[in-house]
Amino acid sequence: MFTKRQKNIVVIGGGTGTYTVLSGLKKYPPDLFDLTAIVTVADSGGSTGRLRDEFGYLPVGDFRMALVALADDSEVGNALRSLFLHRFDKGEGLKGHNFGNLFLVALTDIFGSEERAIEYASQMLRVRGRVLPVTSEKITLAAEYESGHTVKGETYIDEPPESHDGTQKIKRLWIEPEARISERAREAIASADLIIMGPGDLYTSILASVVVPGTKEALVSSKGKLLFVLNLMSKYGQTHNFTANDHLTELIQYTGRNPDYVLVNNNNLPEDILEAYYAQKEFPIADDLEEGSAAIIRNDFLASEEVKKKSGDTLRRSLIRHDPDKLARAIIEIM
Amino acid sequence: MFTKRQKNIVVIGGGTGTYTVLSGLKKYPPDLFDLTAIVTVADSGGSTGRLRDEFGYLPVGDFRMALVALADDSEVGNALRSLFLHRFDKGEGLKGHNFGNLFLVALTDIFGSEERAIEYASQMLRVRGRVLPVTSEKITLAAEYESGHTVKGETYIDEPPESHDGTQKIKRLWIEPEARISERAREAIASADLIIMGPGDLYTSILASVVVPGTKEALVSSKGKLLFVLNLMSKYGQTHNFTANDHLTELIQYTGRNPDYVLVNNNNLPEDILEAYYAQKEFPIADDLEEGSAAIIRNDFLASEEVKKKSGDTLRRSLIRHDPDKLARAIIEIM
Repeated sequence: MFTKRQKNIVVIGGGTGTYTVLSGLKKYPPDLFDLTAIVTVADSGGSTGRLRDEFGYLPVGDFRMALVALADDSEVGNALRSLFLHRFDKGEGLKGHNFGNLFLVALTDIFGSEERAIEYASQMLRVRGRVLPVTSEKITLAAEYESGHTVKGETYIDEPPESHDGTQKIKRLWIEPEARISERAREAIASADLIIMGPGDLYTSILASVVVPGTKEALVSSKGKLLFVLNLMSKYGQTHNFTANDHLTELIQYTGRNPDYVLVNNNNLPEDILEAYYAQKEFPIADDLEEGSAAIIRNDFLASEEVKKKSGDTLRRSLIRHDPDKLARAIIEIM
Repeated sequence: MFTKRQKNIVVIGGGTGTYTVLSGLKKYPPDLFDLTAIVTVADSGGSTGRLRDEFGYLPVGDFRMALVALADDSEVGNALRSLFLHRFDKGEGLKGHNFGNLFLVALTDIFGSEERAIEYASQMLRVRGRVLPVTSEKITLAAEYESGHTVKGETYIDEPPESHDGTQKIKRLWIEPEARISERAREAIASADLIIMGPGDLYTSILASVVVPGTKEALVSSKGKLLFVLNLMSKYGQTHNFTANDHLTELIQYTGRNPDYVLVNNNNLPEDILEAYYAQKEFPIADDLEEGSAAIIRNDFLASEEVKKKSGDTLRRSLIRHDPDKLARAIIEIM
């Protein structure tokens, strides 16, 4: 399937899952494929949310993660990566802030736009490929649940309050106010050979970009193959009790396309770590997929080393993760 | 006077004056001379002071200025310089903070020492030469005035409260608690061919480093020539009514050496800008120097362009400045 023409890979998402995919793909030689990350701008919680409220800029947390994933591995590059991931645990007003977020906000202050801030940060971090916000407009993610109840703000969908019944399915996801996919993001999808979604929070990280008007149309008209990486665990409040097929059904509905490939981990999840997930009402996703329009690729995609929860981080983080290299290898084989 | 051996220039100070000298010297080819900035760690005000109090690290503001002065002029370098000089004007707890200060604090968090933080920042900014804290110990600057009144904390000496009589001379300057000059700073002075002090606040920027135990001894035993750049204006609270000779007398007393060269501006200061200074009780310094042990070099060292006060900056900034290139040219001629 390889030709001399460089392939274009587009990864759509945000957060840890996209970080994993990008950091695996980054290690391959640049002449093998071009790499674009199209990143959600719906985030409204944590350090990112505070900055978003106070500065009125696009939320920076997901850009930051994608930039760090694609940053080079030199000594200075690694120091910059550490900086971008550093969270202050002291300082009035600084505590809880992620330094990478402040970095991007300061660059936006100076250069007047988030796009230029990302470009400069990309140069400093010597990133492989590019990171694009899905839209340059300030949007709010909204969800309507089965019950008819509506929630606005990504953070309230991602981390619902105690009072919320997390077994409720999300019936409808949209953004407010009206916005359009950015021209650069649209073009990247149009000229993609492979479009990757997942792993990651189905609604708040993946579909949050898909529901930006123009994205679905771009996906439907793109000749690029669509690859979906299935999550390892369900998520209370978003995908509670979802089987693999439930994930796929939602993805097909929102994207308007059948994925061409689905990557599914078939290695056993470590029982001792699972306990912590059960306490959070998160469970392994049952694999009920049948070969149909999509090629189902089952393999060991599990990170063998336990991923440590980061201290000073106010958000809960997964400890069972995909392995960047195993995912990347499977993706390259498909291409 | 030039030989094949590379000359070593050491600049001792902090703040805007040192910034001016360093940014002029930086433009000369690196093989002409090696450049070391030995920077005060007494600063206790503004963004730097807040961070110092909250994180317990050495104050970073003077390092930051020296690093920026020595940073390279590439596009990415310039963006980093802008970042290091950027001051947030929004954000709870962020407002008033200088981004470069946060950068250095985050690096110190990550790498565990101010020295390593400065080294990494130097690599990122691709600085010419090196920046060294005069000591790695946390110190407080203290001053006793003619009246017998004692003040502790650099910021209270630099910007005395309304109640303080700024015409009072500082009788004694010292640091608390006990500390020593760092070994690297001591070695830099020992192997210097030229040691530059000034321009800048005589007590809070220049002598603040000289009173760190071990510095005076290093200065006295160094074979390097001592060059003093006289300030343009006196400063209420520090050098009120000081003539040029008064400055020199103090310098000689604290350093234990006669300077070999004194650079004195002889170009007229712009009358319209002076008005603003008079309102702050700051006046042009009378040149009463006579040729003695030091060579007095009088020339036009004045910046011809008006230096704008930076918005968002809570500290008062001088508008009459030395010209970096004119100073550097005179320094090179001396060497």
